[in-house]
Amino acid sequence: MDEKKETSRVEAFSDGVFAIAITLLILDVTSAFSDASKLELFGLLQQQWTVLLAFLLSFATIGIMWLNHHRLFTLIVRADHTLLVLNILLLLAATVVPFPTALLGRYGADMVNGVDVKNNGANFWLATILYNGVFLFVAVVYNFLWRYATHKRRLLSRDVDMEAVRRINRQYLLGPLFYAIAFALTFLSPWLSPDTYTQVLAC
Amino acid sequence: MDEKKETSRVEAFSDGVFAIAITLLILDVTSAFSDASKLELFGLLQQQWTVLLAFLLSFATIGIMWLNHHRLFTLIVRADHTLLVLNILLLLAATVVPFPTALLGRYGADMVNGVDVKNNGANFWLATILYNGVFLFVAVVYNFLWRYATHKRRLLSRDVDMEAVRRINRQYLLGPLFYAIAFALTFLSPWLSPDTYTQVLAC
Amino acid sequence: MDEKKETSRVEAFSDGVFAIAITLLILDVTSAFSDASKLELFGLLQQQWTVLLAFLLSFATIGIMWLNHHRLFTLIVRADHTLLVLNILLLLAATVVPFPTALLGRYGADMVNGVDVKNNGANFWLATILYNGVFLFVAVVYNFLWRYATHKRRLLSRDVDMEAVRRINRQYLLGPLFYAIAFALTFLSPWLSPDTYTQVLAC
Amino acid sequence: MDEKKETSRVEAFSDGVFAIAITLLILDVTSAFSDASKLELFGLLQQQWTVLLAFLLSFATIGIMWLNHHRLFTLIVRADHTLLVLNILLLLAATVVPFPTALLGRYGADMVNGVDVKNNGANFWLATILYNGVFLFVAVVYNFLWRYATHKRRLLSRDVDMEAVRRINRQYLLGPLFYAIAFALTFLSPWLSPDTYTQVLAC
Repeated sequence: MDEKKETSRVEAFSDGVFAIAITLLILDVTSAFSDASKLELFGLLQQQWTVLLAFLLSFATIGIMWLNHHRLFTLIVRADHTLLVLNILLLLAATVVPFPTALLGRYGADMVNGVDVKNNGANFWLATILYNGVFLFVAVVYNFLWRYATHKRRLLSRDVDMEAVRRINRQYLLGPLFYAIAFALTFLSPWLSPDTYTQVLAC
Repeated sequence: MDEKKETSRVEAFSDGVFAIAITLLILDVTSAFSDASKLELFGLLQQQWTVLLAFLLSFATIGIMWLNHHRLFTLIVRADHTLLVLNILLLLAATVVPFPTALLGRYGADMVNGVDVKNNGANFWLATILYNGVFLFVAVVYNFLWRYATHKRRLLSRDVDMEAVRRINRQYLLGPLFYAIAFALTFLSPWLSPDTYTQVLAC
Repeated sequence: MDEKKETSRVEAFSDGVFAIAITLLILDVTSAFSDASKLELFGLLQQQWTVLLAFLLSFATIGIMWLNHHRLFTLIVRADHTLLVLNILLLLAATVVPFPTALLGRYGADMVNGVDVKNNGANFWLATILYNGVFLFVAVVYNFLWRYATHKRRLLSRDVDMEAVRRINRQYLLGPLFYAIAFALTFLSPWLSPDTYTQVLAC
Repeated sequence: MDEKKETSRVEAFSDGVFAIAITLLILDVTSAFSDASKLELFGLLQQQWTVLLAFLLSFATIGIMWLNHHRLFTLIVRADHTLLVLNILLLLAATVVPFPTALLGRYGADMVNGVDVKNNGANFWLATILYNGVFLFVAVVYNFLWRYATHKRRLLSRDVDMEAVRRINRQYLLGPLFYAIAFALTFLSPWLSPDTYTQVLAC
């Protein structure tokens, strides 16, 4: 039981950051509807659906990040300085998510509505690259954190379920590879990225 | 005592999300008063009382959601993947609440103040439908979560008070029905919805 | 030890709300400096010092509310439905604080800088009344919560320090009286309210 | 084990404040990109990189503050009124960080982009002074808190690792001195401050 204690504050701080990042996402939606308040609400909903979609995608993303965090920290029970720093890098990614989400929603809306046609192709493309870049970063940091914690069972509980550890090991081999390919494909075209389609299914 | 542990992090994360969602509501009030800062404060208070009312309604709503969550999780002591996902759906509803609240407050103010008379009937109506839709969603998800957790006592404590479980079962039969009727009535007219009147009393 | 458990989630939720409310206060400062970004920073600091003062006052206020909450809940160890509802009323007050703070800072700045002289007297006055009204509400709710919890030791620990209880009883007799007088004096003139001066000392 | 309990709520409240302050930083980035939404995204990223840099610097700063807090409170196990007040002063500094960050990012962008050349030298300078002033304040308050808690082992665990205490003592002698020199150098020129360069390395 003394073993459990060490990571409880890391978890509390992380829960706080995840909770705030996931809740702040709605502010983009509110402000997108507020900036264009001249229109009828029904027209707004038709025009700004990309903002709502970006909101749902990012909500799912941070939700999945939290589920992952929860799963890893049922197995990780000790904390050292390196783990804390890797964890803060993860939280950096979580707090950054609202930024590319806002870009994606806004430039997506611009493109769908045919505003600034010349630029928007490029803007939406760059927004998709940034968005996918954050996912790749998340996948890589989760891998580092997990490899570091499990190396010679460094930070694991003594009576850890090794089958669960191996199952995560296998999944975490494929994750970054998938995101790296998604990231690379996005450079070719925003529509080629499988990320946008599979994100929600990854749960 | 080992039984208690499993849901403590779900509760902490949920507490964080509820706490932020309930606190962000005030931002709509501040910004509604900031946008119209040319007026005298007294005139502003008269003009924007719908924003204040929407704030109080939504504060009560999220407060009640938290009370419900608190009540369920004194009985639910174990967590599995399905529960975590259902819980994230609940939190989605909680974080979304500030958005229809902002719409309701703003279009309500527009209607009360006779701005854009032609459109506002429709805008306010649509805002009420969205607002009631969120409530219906909340009621349905709480039901699923509760049925899932209590089915064959799946996630309940071994020494759970079955009388308390049955009491919640009975209440949860009526809840979604009530919200579905409220939602349907709102389609006829925003003023027919019993929701707006009984929300605060549901506590 | 089983006694301790009941209020831990109430405390976690309250900590979250207090933490967010106290942190959101800085947003008013940032936005006040952002709206007037045409000016030199040095001139801005001179012009907007009332916004900074209002920030510090409200930070102290919510900080003191948390200290009070912390003190009461080291003595209160059980929770029932009434306590939860009274606690949510307290949190309502905490989340509302940023709103009159923003009004006080903005109309204070207007008055200090001689903008809209005719209206501002009234605006600043009304802002002060709202600000003091929130304090009075806080003091009254804390009293109700405390009287309810301590009545026949209803929600106290069995081995509670009765001397600490009596000390709080005495302080809580004077608190609402003080705030009621402050509130009444504010109706005569914003400068008569002892609140503004003594708030920070009340710690 | 009873010893551990006293500071758990201080830690929870502090975790909340740190988590929110660190997450709110992204709002400056989002709004800096939103205000200038006329431009292409690629041009925006080139123009507003100081905002991104200020975000990363402040994220690192609050991250380091949390790491420090975490380290001190593994040794501090008891809480009294003075500790709570000193802790609230620390949290004041954490919540204030987004404000000078926003100033630094904005006036830095103005200077880099040659907008308002005459004023910006002074604006950026003053922003740097405020930014360094917050760091000095943080270093001084951490020192007070630590000296207070360790004086005659006042708030330490009975079986505390005295070697860890002495190691922190030595580091905390140099910290404020370093920040005071950095603060003084900033008065000469914003570029002389070693702070900006070493902040991230201090981890």
